[in-house]
Amino acid sequence: MTGRQELPKGKPHGDVVALCGGVGGAKLALGLSRVVPGDQLSIGVNTGDDFKHLGLHISPDIDTVMYTLAGLANPETGWGRVDETWNFMETLSSLGGETWFQLGDRDMALHVERTCRLRAGETLSAITADICSRLGIASRVLPMSDDPVRTLVETETGPMPFQNYFVEQRCKPAVRSVTFAGAERATTQRELAAALLKPNLRAVVICPSNPYLSVDPILAVAGMRELLHKVCAPVVAVSPVVGGKAVKGPMAKIMGELGHKVSHATIANHYAGLIEGLMVDCEEEGIPGNISVAVQSTMMKTLDDKIELARAALSFADDITAGRGTLQEQRA
Amino acid sequence: MTGRQELPKGKPHGDVVALCGGVGGAKLALGLSRVVPGDQLSIGVNTGDDFKHLGLHISPDIDTVMYTLAGLANPETGWGRVDETWNFMETLSSLGGETWFQLGDRDMALHVERTCRLRAGETLSAITADICSRLGIASRVLPMSDDPVRTLVETETGPMPFQNYFVEQRCKPAVRSVTFAGAERATTQRELAAALLKPNLRAVVICPSNPYLSVDPILAVAGMRELLHKVCAPVVAVSPVVGGKAVKGPMAKIMGELGHKVSHATIANHYAGLIEGLMVDCEEEGIPGNISVAVQSTMMKTLDDKIELARAALSFADDITAGRGTLQEQRA
Repeated sequence: MTGRQELPKGKPHGDVVALCGGVGGAKLALGLSRVVPGDQLSIGVNTGDDFKHLGLHISPDIDTVMYTLAGLANPETGWGRVDETWNFMETLSSLGGETWFQLGDRDMALHVERTCRLRAGETLSAITADICSRLGIASRVLPMSDDPVRTLVETETGPMPFQNYFVEQRCKPAVRSVTFAGAERATTQRELAAALLKPNLRAVVICPSNPYLSVDPILAVAGMRELLHKVCAPVVAVSPVVGGKAVKGPMAKIMGELGHKVSHATIANHYAGLIEGLMVDCEEEGIPGNISVAVQSTMMKTLDDKIELARAALSFADDITAGRGTLQEQRA
Repeated sequence: MTGRQELPKGKPHGDVVALCGGVGGAKLALGLSRVVPGDQLSIGVNTGDDFKHLGLHISPDIDTVMYTLAGLANPETGWGRVDETWNFMETLSSLGGETWFQLGDRDMALHVERTCRLRAGETLSAITADICSRLGIASRVLPMSDDPVRTLVETETGPMPFQNYFVEQRCKPAVRSVTFAGAERATTQRELAAALLKPNLRAVVICPSNPYLSVDPILAVAGMRELLHKVCAPVVAVSPVVGGKAVKGPMAKIMGELGHKVSHATIANHYAGLIEGLMVDCEEEGIPGNISVAVQSTMMKTLDDKIELARAALSFADDITAGRGTLQEQRA
């Protein structure tokens, strides 16, 4: 189904923009960060999950991406830091505080520092950039917007903020729809918009994050879809369906609740009109004909898996670009 | 110099109010809590040191008193908790956060929880009462006021908030005066005022805290001196001068800077018109004649020292009360 080609030798490698949410997306972002020079990789991250908790501004997906890129992510939980201690939480519990959202002692430092700096008037972008620099992260980690966008999950039991659905309710209520409060008034983060419009852009990679909860909020930011239609490089997505299931989280459950099959075709149709290519782990019927397909193992267990998938996704985009050239040549 | 007498047998023991700041005062408060039933002991605590740091409301003296009474105080530092870990602080430092004020991982829980509840509209009193109950503290720990009072230290290098003087500047600048912003508009905490006016009050004990920085803010709260003049029980102070020096902190240094000798007489003159009795560790010239004096070891190293000093302070107050009775009998 795909026209995989060898990269033309000596082709100049341009900039890459990745769009992602938390765990799964962050894994591919890590892979990309190992194959694209830091100053050429911009990672636009979902902030629809951001919320206020215990007076702190928490940005779960930005945290996961930063911790993952810095080699600090906790591989067992999929959130939070390695070598974490829990004395804050344990004591908070003994004082009658809210404990449904776990915050490790080291993790707390990030939330407290970010909250102080936001209160002092810095933007989430500026704070994220500074913290990335302190954590030794070379790639640009960019919030999708500095304006507040809040994911609201409409469920059978009523609407609920994302974290209440995801953490407190453990994704149990059936999802009817997902909305993004504030998205229509939000502005795409400046550097992210600029990165998307660069003439040397090589690829936009939509990482294998939950399309409904992690990628849709990014796409909902006012003007983002228009920006993606303007990019000169191919937009390719890596399907989060692996082995016919979701690797982690509520994606498969939500697909069912929304009346869709858990399939690459569902992903392809979800992103139809936006992507030129979809990377899948097995061939499948029902993918729209105007979307190129590349078959590749998409399970990322080791760092090598992540790097290999990152290389494959970029190579897939390069193939599409080369195909455009061929088409133009044919037309000429 | 004092007319110590045996307590009349069968004398009903009434309520006790202690006024205190941090370390030294908290030690005597602990002693008192072991000899006065919980529902009969009210501890009015200085909140002039309270401040906002990292977005958190910190109440250093209330914390020290609560941790001390709960058996959780760190005996080495004089502040914070035992069995503390410092992963939050270490990580905050690596993120470029402010680290001049040390906050342990467990200690953080108290500050975060208090700040959340203050923001939700609860009073400092209500929050303190609830936390005391959770920590198993039977005595009433009462902020001197629920209104903000902020200690400002006027120094040779200009005015500075208490914590900046005390922690950041390590008490180095010479003190010219101390003022208490907001004190004239503050209301004495309701239960503290009620405890002072109880007809069965046995004693008011001014604990051996720094008079300028820890007790004066309490006395500065609007109406507090008038309340103390109205109490039916003797007001006695335990001198914080021990062996001719301050046990800890900048008291001796400040006395010098204000032109006073480091002596019990300086303490007595500071509290003149307010106290009927001063407990000292050695006899001394220069104490006003209208202040009764009791000599007693006032160094509190062990729990037994604290209990013994608490008993002695109450017995001293009882002596003064008994002396009043004798005077009345003589007059009759």
